[in-house]
Amino acid sequence: MTEKPTILIANDDGYRAKGLRKLTDLMRTIGKVIVVTTEKVNSAQGHSITMTEPLRYHLHEKGEDYEMYVCNGRPVDCVKLGYQVIMDKNPDIVVSGINHGSNASTNLIYSGTMAAAVEACMDKIPAVGFSLDSYSPDAYFDHLDGYIIDIVKNVLERGLPDRVCLNVNFPKYDPENPIKGVRICHQADGRWIEVFDRRNDPSGKEYFWLTGYFEEKDLSEDGDQYALKNNYVSIVPTSYDWTAYFAIDTIKKWNL
Amino acid sequence: MTEKPTILIANDDGYRAKGLRKLTDLMRTIGKVIVVTTEKVNSAQGHSITMTEPLRYHLHEKGEDYEMYVCNGRPVDCVKLGYQVIMDKNPDIVVSGINHGSNASTNLIYSGTMAAAVEACMDKIPAVGFSLDSYSPDAYFDHLDGYIIDIVKNVLERGLPDRVCLNVNFPKYDPENPIKGVRICHQADGRWIEVFDRRNDPSGKEYFWLTGYFEEKDLSEDGDQYALKNNYVSIVPTSYDWTAYFAIDTIKKWNL
Repeated sequence: MTEKPTILIANDDGYRAKGLRKLTDLMRTIGKVIVVTTEKVNSAQGHSITMTEPLRYHLHEKGEDYEMYVCNGRPVDCVKLGYQVIMDKNPDIVVSGINHGSNASTNLIYSGTMAAAVEACMDKIPAVGFSLDSYSPDAYFDHLDGYIIDIVKNVLERGLPDRVCLNVNFPKYDPENPIKGVRICHQADGRWIEVFDRRNDPSGKEYFWLTGYFEEKDLSEDGDQYALKNNYVSIVPTSYDWTAYFAIDTIKKWNL
Repeated sequence: MTEKPTILIANDDGYRAKGLRKLTDLMRTIGKVIVVTTEKVNSAQGHSITMTEPLRYHLHEKGEDYEMYVCNGRPVDCVKLGYQVIMDKNPDIVVSGINHGSNASTNLIYSGTMAAAVEACMDKIPAVGFSLDSYSPDAYFDHLDGYIIDIVKNVLERGLPDRVCLNVNFPKYDPENPIKGVRICHQADGRWIEVFDRRNDPSGKEYFWLTGYFEEKDLSEDGDQYALKNNYVSIVPTSYDWTAYFAIDTIKKWNL
């Protein structure tokens, strides 16, 4: 590539997030960067989009080959606005994150970070979502620099298969247990066991906070949960084709 | 099954929707029915959940072997609340819809209707999302009765493969062109071409409405778009495992 690549960044933790700042700093070392991020934290917004309220955005900050816009919508709105309104052509790559919290296993299903990448993928733009296995707002990210640059450069040079984006998850920083390498994985099975925290408001009316914990169901060596737990970076090639091809013949036999 | 099956119904068009009423009436002919639906229309909310606001619900109406609850959350919240708080055990099946609007092809990705089914599927409850290829609030649904009953009875009797739920889409009613039958399909490729409708508010500030049109990219005979366009019911076995298995070897060769 002779010219610097154009890189569109989105996330779901909002414009103040440390993970977004880290990803922006890294991407500015290799390309022209446009960030379109959200005013508010948009965790667990999945692939939602904003259709019943008007969208607004404004230029939040600017530097050499760099602009950051803040939008009142969700992560998917940000990506769409980015390459369809703010930029005059599609970026060479969309990167999303770095999310504060793992999007490995079925966490992916709820993830705004990955929804932003999937949206770009549907528009045939190479896309990668990055997430760190730590919810701390002040999480340490510096151990990821080389991995992120490497992955983005590979995608820019090689492209990605049709309908495929990457879901990249990093172990959190542990000085006594450094990252061992990278594994290309499948999405492990798992689920959130919800706990509805039942309370009463000052007028006595019942309400619930949704909370819970994650139950791992697949720690096989090829899965992303195994990789993360064993201090590897996990990369899952991820598709927006959700067809369960293996089940088609079974259902065909039903004589519907 | 000696006892009547318990059926949990969700949707994303809210408690007033005609499609929900139709599905409820149909399910009451074969089982004990709990409906947990939303106050507001929740189209295009994808797999979003409510974590930063408290959830509330109330009993909206009641009949023989039938209760309808209305909740302030999204479709996925409704399903979770349904079998974890409102019901004392998991239902025999979760059905979602009937959505006013197609969820075939990549419409699935944005769909609250299908997110409700996918959520149940992650919890190993058989689940089916039903959608009609018409956005009209007053759409005609009576041509679907036999198909819906048939599909639900089959799922109740046979179960579904692990990690698989069904995405069922119906052609809209056309008296001169009746439904020809059922096809088991793959999810066709396609995408929304967004049009951001740029306007100015009374104080002159710019805002955007997200709108657009759907571009079909795959009308192959095995795809769900082909089935719908040719007046077949399309059933896509749908998985929450989004791994692009075919791409794993390619990415492994990158030497990351």
